[in-house]
Amino acid sequence: MAHARRYHRSVLPATIDDVPAAVHGLLADVFAERRTATSVVADRIADLTDLVGDFVLGGGKRVRPTFAWAGFRLAGGRCDDAHADAAFRVCAALELIQACALIHDDIMDRSDTRRGRPTVHRAVAARHRENGWLGDPDHFGVSTAILLGDLALSWADDMLAQAPLEGTVRDGVVSVWTAMRTEVLAGQMLDVVTEAAADESVDAAYRVMRFKTAGYTVARPLQLGACLAGAPAEVVETLGRIGDGLGIAFQLRDDMLGVFGDPAVTGKPSGDDLVAGKRTALLAVALRRSDTDDPEAARRLRSLVGRPLGDDELDAARRILVDSGAAAEIETEIEVLVDDSLAVLDALDAPSDARADLAAVAHALTRRRS
Amino acid sequence: MAHARRYHRSVLPATIDDVPAAVHGLLADVFAERRTATSVVADRIADLTDLVGDFVLGGGKRVRPTFAWAGFRLAGGRCDDAHADAAFRVCAALELIQACALIHDDIMDRSDTRRGRPTVHRAVAARHRENGWLGDPDHFGVSTAILLGDLALSWADDMLAQAPLEGTVRDGVVSVWTAMRTEVLAGQMLDVVTEAAADESVDAAYRVMRFKTAGYTVARPLQLGACLAGAPAEVVETLGRIGDGLGIAFQLRDDMLGVFGDPAVTGKPSGDDLVAGKRTALLAVALRRSDTDDPEAARRLRSLVGRPLGDDELDAARRILVDSGAAAEIETEIEVLVDDSLAVLDALDAPSDARADLAAVAHALTRRRS
Repeated sequence: MAHARRYHRSVLPATIDDVPAAVHGLLADVFAERRTATSVVADRIADLTDLVGDFVLGGGKRVRPTFAWAGFRLAGGRCDDAHADAAFRVCAALELIQACALIHDDIMDRSDTRRGRPTVHRAVAARHRENGWLGDPDHFGVSTAILLGDLALSWADDMLAQAPLEGTVRDGVVSVWTAMRTEVLAGQMLDVVTEAAADESVDAAYRVMRFKTAGYTVARPLQLGACLAGAPAEVVETLGRIGDGLGIAFQLRDDMLGVFGDPAVTGKPSGDDLVAGKRTALLAVALRRSDTDDPEAARRLRSLVGRPLGDDELDAARRILVDSGAAAEIETEIEVLVDDSLAVLDALDAPSDARADLAAVAHALTRRRS
Repeated sequence: MAHARRYHRSVLPATIDDVPAAVHGLLADVFAERRTATSVVADRIADLTDLVGDFVLGGGKRVRPTFAWAGFRLAGGRCDDAHADAAFRVCAALELIQACALIHDDIMDRSDTRRGRPTVHRAVAARHRENGWLGDPDHFGVSTAILLGDLALSWADDMLAQAPLEGTVRDGVVSVWTAMRTEVLAGQMLDVVTEAAADESVDAAYRVMRFKTAGYTVARPLQLGACLAGAPAEVVETLGRIGDGLGIAFQLRDDMLGVFGDPAVTGKPSGDDLVAGKRTALLAVALRRSDTDDPEAARRLRSLVGRPLGDDELDAARRILVDSGAAAEIETEIEVLVDDSLAVLDALDAPSDARADLAAVAHALTRRRS
């Protein structure tokens, strides 16, 4: 019954840049521990559940743990705090929620590749084919990937449940954690519904960004970290505002890369968002501007959303996104959001190195090329 | 930040028979609270997430909370204990894990109905059609139902995280809870793999039962309840043994009903398991016996698994299951398992009314007709 406390002390990140490596090390231990549990059920099940570990350890920028650890340090948390180890485990657990989100998203988006490798449901389907099993390999791939995503989500919650946090620290952390999970799932649902309803409004695009990305990727992780350091409510609230701004900037950059990015660098086919009919702010702004300035371009752009596109068509869509002024508007918006958020950060009573770290991360993520 | 403690005291079940009604009442409050959270994202998302509440409140026997509450009382827990309320919330949360399991299972099994009503993915697809949205309604139904299942799973973990449990009680509860979630998901995966690999062995069928059903439905809930009452390790272990026996008996009854049950009573088409190619112990035993005694019957039975069946074919399969002696063997097995488990229960140092309650529940569930 002592399992809840039975884990190794992890190597804590000395600087913010060390977070990804520290997350990787800690999660590798977690997956090894979980393999012991799943191999009790059957070895061939452990071979399947290994796909969660392969997926998580195979890539990813560890954005959410990085923001969470930044929040911990902004609120005065330090590596030599008594429960710094528990705090870091909770930060790292965010990567397992993200694993569930991506594994399930890839099913919904029918994606074949992620980070230049087969998606989990495709990898499972391939294994079904290799084994010459009965039934439809693709359906088997989807079924098993649903369960693997569920497993990742459960393991994330396990890491929180097992963290020895108490009293008001635990209450604060649980409050952010529970809000975050409902928001990201409801936000993802809103994304799917917005696409299905072909909602062209800029408002809908921002609403999806706020809940699906900004809260989940930046604001909530920052707040989670702050609560792990026992921050007072005002600090938690301020970090929420900073995180919302940076998070929307982060998503706007993602939308730009989804259309204009170099597939060799991003690891995903350029134009995917257009093909999928994703209702990005970039598209919404371009349609709004074109409807006024150039209805013919608006009509053309609408015809280039939600279906397979040739290279020429993709170029045509890109041209309208640029010529309408939408791409420039989004670039300006990114800049303003980052500047405003960093101004609030500057005014925050927090260790200066922690502030500098968050500013550096914010710049890197909103200026990235992949 | 005080959200973690902000909940109403629920009405605790005066007797074991009151558990279903008490669970219903408590979960209705939980869903109302969650609606507030999801309607912040968008009203039309709250309308979708309501489907989780409709599904859970629309039916179900509350088997897992009932066993958990039985475990709580067997370990000396009482309604007037200081944290009885928190304990009951954790028991009730099991119903949300189950909601996720069923919503996701119905996707994997491509089931159209559950409890005589459309499955969640079908209900969502119907809503897509009504709204005349873009894209494939069935794919939209599956995508959204994956997310609704994730939401149910998250809410289950929220209820545990928000329960004010501390110290060794919390450690014990978390230990059972984490083991249970990994086991049921890995067990479900084993079920899918066993089916795909057309594994005919009795061993495989029992392994699936042990992890997917017995542990998750009876043994772990009993242990969870006992830990909520602060039971010592020996009691937790003994309840695990009792639960494994009763749980396998429960699943064997389910397998019998899946082939011989009355659709008007069970709410699902008779013979579903055969059509789906489910590798039940009933089927495995029938094949093992027929292979020796009547190879022609074995050949015929194999031809009646994993494909649509007419009424005549279904009758033929039923006849082989009976004539081979498999049905009788399973009935005897159910009886032996229940008797042995109840003998261990009898020897347990526990309140006599709690022992009588578990015995009554065990009989009801292993002799049920639906």
